[in-house]
Amino acid sequence: MFESAELGHKISKTTFDAAVPELREALLNAQFDLAQQAKFPVIILIGGLDGAGRSETVNLLNEWMDPRFLQTHGMGEPSDEEMERPMMWRFWRALPPKGRIGLFLGSWYTWPILHRVKGHTNEAELVQSLERARRFEKMLTDEGALVLKFWLHLSREKQLARLKLLEKSPLTRWRVTQRDWEHYKQYDKFLTVNESVIRHTSTAEAPWLIIEGEDHRYRSLTIGQSVLQSLRKRLDESTNPVTPEQVTAAPLLPAIDKRDLLHALDQTRRLGKAEYRKLLEKYQGKLALLSRDPRFQKLTVVVAFEGNDAAGKGGAIRRITGALDARRYQIIPVAAPTEEERAQPYLWRFWRHIPRRGRIAIFDRSWYGRVLVERIENFCNASDWMRAYGEINDFEGQLVRNRILVVKFWLAISKEEQLKRFKEREKIGFKRFKITDEDWRNRDKWEAYEHAVCDMVDHTSTETAPWTLVEANDKNFARIKILKTLCKQIERAMKAQA
Amino acid sequence: MFESAELGHKISKTTFDAAVPELREALLNAQFDLAQQAKFPVIILIGGLDGAGRSETVNLLNEWMDPRFLQTHGMGEPSDEEMERPMMWRFWRALPPKGRIGLFLGSWYTWPILHRVKGHTNEAELVQSLERARRFEKMLTDEGALVLKFWLHLSREKQLARLKLLEKSPLTRWRVTQRDWEHYKQYDKFLTVNESVIRHTSTAEAPWLIIEGEDHRYRSLTIGQSVLQSLRKRLDESTNPVTPEQVTAAPLLPAIDKRDLLHALDQTRRLGKAEYRKLLEKYQGKLALLSRDPRFQKLTVVVAFEGNDAAGKGGAIRRITGALDARRYQIIPVAAPTEEERAQPYLWRFWRHIPRRGRIAIFDRSWYGRVLVERIENFCNASDWMRAYGEINDFEGQLVRNRILVVKFWLAISKEEQLKRFKEREKIGFKRFKITDEDWRNRDKWEAYEHAVCDMVDHTSTETAPWTLVEANDKNFARIKILKTLCKQIERAMKAQA
Repeated sequence: MFESAELGHKISKTTFDAAVPELREALLNAQFDLAQQAKFPVIILIGGLDGAGRSETVNLLNEWMDPRFLQTHGMGEPSDEEMERPMMWRFWRALPPKGRIGLFLGSWYTWPILHRVKGHTNEAELVQSLERARRFEKMLTDEGALVLKFWLHLSREKQLARLKLLEKSPLTRWRVTQRDWEHYKQYDKFLTVNESVIRHTSTAEAPWLIIEGEDHRYRSLTIGQSVLQSLRKRLDESTNPVTPEQVTAAPLLPAIDKRDLLHALDQTRRLGKAEYRKLLEKYQGKLALLSRDPRFQKLTVVVAFEGNDAAGKGGAIRRITGALDARRYQIIPVAAPTEEERAQPYLWRFWRHIPRRGRIAIFDRSWYGRVLVERIENFCNASDWMRAYGEINDFEGQLVRNRILVVKFWLAISKEEQLKRFKEREKIGFKRFKITDEDWRNRDKWEAYEHAVCDMVDHTSTETAPWTLVEANDKNFARIKILKTLCKQIERAMKAQA
Repeated sequence: MFESAELGHKISKTTFDAAVPELREALLNAQFDLAQQAKFPVIILIGGLDGAGRSETVNLLNEWMDPRFLQTHGMGEPSDEEMERPMMWRFWRALPPKGRIGLFLGSWYTWPILHRVKGHTNEAELVQSLERARRFEKMLTDEGALVLKFWLHLSREKQLARLKLLEKSPLTRWRVTQRDWEHYKQYDKFLTVNESVIRHTSTAEAPWLIIEGEDHRYRSLTIGQSVLQSLRKRLDESTNPVTPEQVTAAPLLPAIDKRDLLHALDQTRRLGKAEYRKLLEKYQGKLALLSRDPRFQKLTVVVAFEGNDAAGKGGAIRRITGALDARRYQIIPVAAPTEEERAQPYLWRFWRHIPRRGRIAIFDRSWYGRVLVERIENFCNASDWMRAYGEINDFEGQLVRNRILVVKFWLAISKEEQLKRFKEREKIGFKRFKITDEDWRNRDKWEAYEHAVCDMVDHTSTETAPWTLVEANDKNFARIKILKTLCKQIERAMKAQA
């Protein structure tokens, strides 16, 4: 796999000096167009062996291009705020917005490689983490990002020679650490693991480019040209867009016998006032104690609320927060994305609210908007919401793997019950309950929403992050079911830790 | 000062129960209007003695109001990311945007009080930190925020009784810590310090409201009513705006003898090509070594670049970054604020980019836009840019006190030199150098800008964060002066640490 990168590629100083001015001007112009269009972000990964010129490459790109529109990320040791979140949080945090370039020197490959070389993981675990990286990058490219991955390679002899050379000069000596020498001793191990990485994650959307690192002129010119051409091609495409890819997947049909998850709910379930009061006190008390349990400090809880309009999400949320210390929770009402959020992949605005340990984040509407309102209102095209199921499962999977409890509620009411509540609300004093034209319009699409909800549950109710469908025609019944479910899941998560 | 809050205020259950439903509805409606208008943020501080009901108050406000538009901040121990920045960074980070309410249980008063009680600071130092808090709040209110400060008080006997009561119940026992008892033993010290706090920071814009904490009904109803009335008043004002405050300050006149800082610059200063090359290598080499010095890891550097259009800011920045490892710096090009930035006080978008230790943040245009372009283009009114001088000095003062080196350059060229450069640029291939109509329009306001620059330097060139005016008609001379200044200031800052 690395043979072509051990041929001793070289470029003469004359060729290099002749090529650079034109390349730089073209890069600057491309970067300017990128910023002006602001239609997609560029993510460049510089990976490879120690001493193969990764830092030099990053510095050179900063020199050749306009560093004001380029963000370089070293991605060394994570901070404590980063340690308390899933590994990918820090990368989401560092993603460049549309129109900008993000240059990553350490990436989502760094730790999987090191863990495998050190033997902390086995081959299957490595492949599994590579598969996750692949899916993450697929999401990025599907969301429009241009992802460029460069792998700088050196033969064993050349690595030794480079490290020795760097150690000689006082200007570069600081860059060769004890760790570099340890890595050199494990050259063969690294080679095996690196090959695995490249093999599993070189995809059509984001291929690895393996480049011999020895000759800095060859290396620099190759990377510079490659960045330029990829960028230029994408820029020209986005001014002359190609016809969108045809979705050849079979359409999702509603159940033809009209038996579906929502219709299977027993909407006659009710709780009398006295019983409700008793149970409310019981489960709020329980939740209060659970959230003050020392084990809770090691847990994070993410709750997503979805449901029909007027299904009672707000009221249910207040019954939860009523049991909690206000310092422990945050409610994230999900409305239209802000300008900064629109410049990022759609899950970005949810990643940014993932809280630290010992906290509860309650999403009032959530990342499921993509497969509900965005699907039905055609805010995105079919392939976008189709792929969202998998992306959401990946997202929640990452949370769960990182000891984050994910609890998801769908509050279902019947069409008649909604009508009743809309009419009641029209009479009520609370301004926040005023019914808008939009609410009535959504109601006209009742069946489309039902279909989308059933598809959503089918595709995203996983073992680790299952949906709880809540019969919400009776508010009392719904609130107790929600509190009880939440308590049970927190209890189970705390036990699983111990 | 606390006498009225030791009278044993009480409200009967009947009165309370009768008043609450109406109060809640009014609060919800006010909150709804606040969110709809989205014209100002609300910042509520809940301070006071342990056991006086601070947590209960915060939880109750969350219960009465819509918790989705309320953010509660406990502000316990800072994270490592927060520890590497000035103390106020974490509060800036937590400020609510326009239309939302931020509820602070710990605030910028917490540490000054504790440090004084423990004797880590003397009275003068306490007063100094209170003065800073006062100025910070003045800035917030000037920027439109509604700042409400509640101080919950208890007499010594009542505090003892409350702590004992809380310890009795298993539901509240966790809340009484060893620390609370230690604080109780220092009741008198706290009383003295608290009085100082209230006396120095109760202002017309943001007065403290002292409330007796003993009776939860009295306390809750008083705070609820107070929040409601302040909110309602501000909401009504912003729909029927009062005529803006007259600025009675004397206007800033340009020097009537035409002698000013800019005209005093010797724009004939030049550097020949050979000399420039030699010095460039020297100072870039020096900067490279300085930034790799272990002491640099304890420092943060913030560089602000301002200057006439086409003065060569970009080129100068590239000469700095050319000497640095790309992982160590970030360039922040300052253009129009984003939607999220417009919902915050104007310094917010600069605070968010203050980097961690061992990093350099280079601002290409900066917070000085307020007293330059915003002043001249009338983007803000006179009192706004007039107060900005003081606010900027406070901002930079906080950075400097926290071992952040602040380096500020004004790149000055003559009007003739600018014309020459504009004409050259019109011929050039690099798209990013295209001259726009706006550039020509700014040129028409040359004298107004000169005047504003001189005022800016006069008001904000402080001993700890001085301006360096750079004669930039000759690019070589300017770049070397900038590199040399930066090196010298970094060296001095590293020595000062040791």
